[in-house]
Amino acid sequence: MKKVKKIVVIGGGTGNFAVLHGLKHYDVELSAVVSMADDGGSTGILRDELGVLPPGDVRQCLVALSNSSDLMRSLMNYRFENGGLGGHSFGNLFLSALEKVTGSFERAVEEMGRILFIQGKVIPVTTHQVRLKMLLNNRVLLEGEKEVYLSQEIDQGYTSVYLEPFSKANPHAIAEIMEADLLVMGPGGLHTSLIPNLLVEGISEALRSSPAKKAFVVNLMNRKGQTTGFKVSHYLNEISRFIGEDVFDHILVNSQTPPQELIDVYADEGDLVENDLDEKRVVYVPLLGEPKEALKKDLMKRSLIRHDSIKLAKELMNIVNNL
Amino acid sequence: MKKVKKIVVIGGGTGNFAVLHGLKHYDVELSAVVSMADDGGSTGILRDELGVLPPGDVRQCLVALSNSSDLMRSLMNYRFENGGLGGHSFGNLFLSALEKVTGSFERAVEEMGRILFIQGKVIPVTTHQVRLKMLLNNRVLLEGEKEVYLSQEIDQGYTSVYLEPFSKANPHAIAEIMEADLLVMGPGGLHTSLIPNLLVEGISEALRSSPAKKAFVVNLMNRKGQTTGFKVSHYLNEISRFIGEDVFDHILVNSQTPPQELIDVYADEGDLVENDLDEKRVVYVPLLGEPKEALKKDLMKRSLIRHDSIKLAKELMNIVNNL
Repeated sequence: MKKVKKIVVIGGGTGNFAVLHGLKHYDVELSAVVSMADDGGSTGILRDELGVLPPGDVRQCLVALSNSSDLMRSLMNYRFENGGLGGHSFGNLFLSALEKVTGSFERAVEEMGRILFIQGKVIPVTTHQVRLKMLLNNRVLLEGEKEVYLSQEIDQGYTSVYLEPFSKANPHAIAEIMEADLLVMGPGGLHTSLIPNLLVEGISEALRSSPAKKAFVVNLMNRKGQTTGFKVSHYLNEISRFIGEDVFDHILVNSQTPPQELIDVYADEGDLVENDLDEKRVVYVPLLGEPKEALKKDLMKRSLIRHDSIKLAKELMNIVNNL
Repeated sequence: MKKVKKIVVIGGGTGNFAVLHGLKHYDVELSAVVSMADDGGSTGILRDELGVLPPGDVRQCLVALSNSSDLMRSLMNYRFENGGLGGHSFGNLFLSALEKVTGSFERAVEEMGRILFIQGKVIPVTTHQVRLKMLLNNRVLLEGEKEVYLSQEIDQGYTSVYLEPFSKANPHAIAEIMEADLLVMGPGGLHTSLIPNLLVEGISEALRSSPAKKAFVVNLMNRKGQTTGFKVSHYLNEISRFIGEDVFDHILVNSQTPPQELIDVYADEGDLVENDLDEKRVVYVPLLGEPKEALKKDLMKRSLIRHDSIKLAKELMNIVNNL
């Protein structure tokens, strides 16, 4: 008999998937606090047409933590191809229908978690309908996460980024952060998946005051027009600005260079993130997923160079086991 | 320890629901053989846009047999209200997505049965894509179950009714029929839910040769323009014509008159079915659902006068217990 450690992962989008999927194989208590700013694709249509909270990021976390059959996990990620349903992920429809039937997004997430036999918890960072907005230096206003995600001008500078309306955090998200032994931020879209969590009232404060150790997993690649030329210190400074101070005890940085052919394929999307920090807290280790595996599959470019969930989990467990 | 009896219900549409829902509370082996001719509403759109087999009737049977939570059953019957998803029942989307992911409608039905903890089996009468057609005496061709359902001219007579293409029965449906102790047909739309099963190659022959006892549950109401003025003998003759002989050992006929106010509400849709048979096999008993209960809810007219699932199940179990 022993007491296990509690790891809380904060993010959204596909970045969370690698971390959660890897950590699932260890004896830890796992929670994912998930951004509610997504408004693209299937999720955006459901928000607009049904008035539901955004299901996409939550669904990905639920699938990452699921211990159900391959079939159920494939089903939840299945996308309809034709007609009025075209583009909708079935798992998104599942969450939205559950939200309609139960009258509560949080309840829907819990129920879907039960159906998928998830190991851990998935917690929306807020249960309010929020929209991400970003005002660029050239006075262009980006409205919604999708517009921010697609913008090629963010690295020209922005005046402000905020959620509309400015909303309170889900008290369960705060509780998770306060009770964690290890908090993990990243990898993930800096302005679209990570920072939107910090724009919710109460989250940054909780991050500063939580007694947990904090780890930052730095992205592998920059996004052109968004974080072009960013080095590790830029990521750290940008995210620390929103937290209010540099809270990180550990910074996980990939030391492995992807094969040139993959970098070439990726050239239109962005460049590799270089490490410019020489500090004790930087864990500079190989974290890359098997590129041959990636090339074999017909994946989207952005998935070709990605974190290996097993390597990531090993490093995070290394931190946890030394607490 | 005892060996339980096997009851197989053949039909489609809402008629099956009352029978299955009632019988679920007894110690019997239950199967539903379900028509595959439905092409209206959400089901019709899914057939057209995704090329799937019709989920609607199967979903209703699965929900009727489900032992899962109220929430799961509400979820499966939930209909989206707005946008591109408007009108779709979530359970239909569930079955269709499962069919896409597994590549097999039968497999999808099995999996959904597992998820809903159903008591019994649901078997599509055929696994081929079929369409119901009816050629009327006035040479109007009704294409699809929906057109047949909406027609007001069927009681003027029809030349033929058939499935296109003429398809073989699902061998599992044949097996269920051959192994049953009691076969139950009805209640349900005569031309839209019951007869379409008999138009599948092999089903009528199986009904004639199965050693099972056969019970026919006669509808409560006629449908205007379809079975106007039909009495019990007309229903029996019409269905027997498709089976090839009168196979029924028991004919369940409701003896209860609904309150006049309900008959008035229903007047546009059709008249009461009168009993004109004086035979020993006719079980002439009260089978009506509580009308006050029905009136309280804002139901569709056709649901106001309906069978009581508990009364129906009692009569059927009475037959089974005397085998």
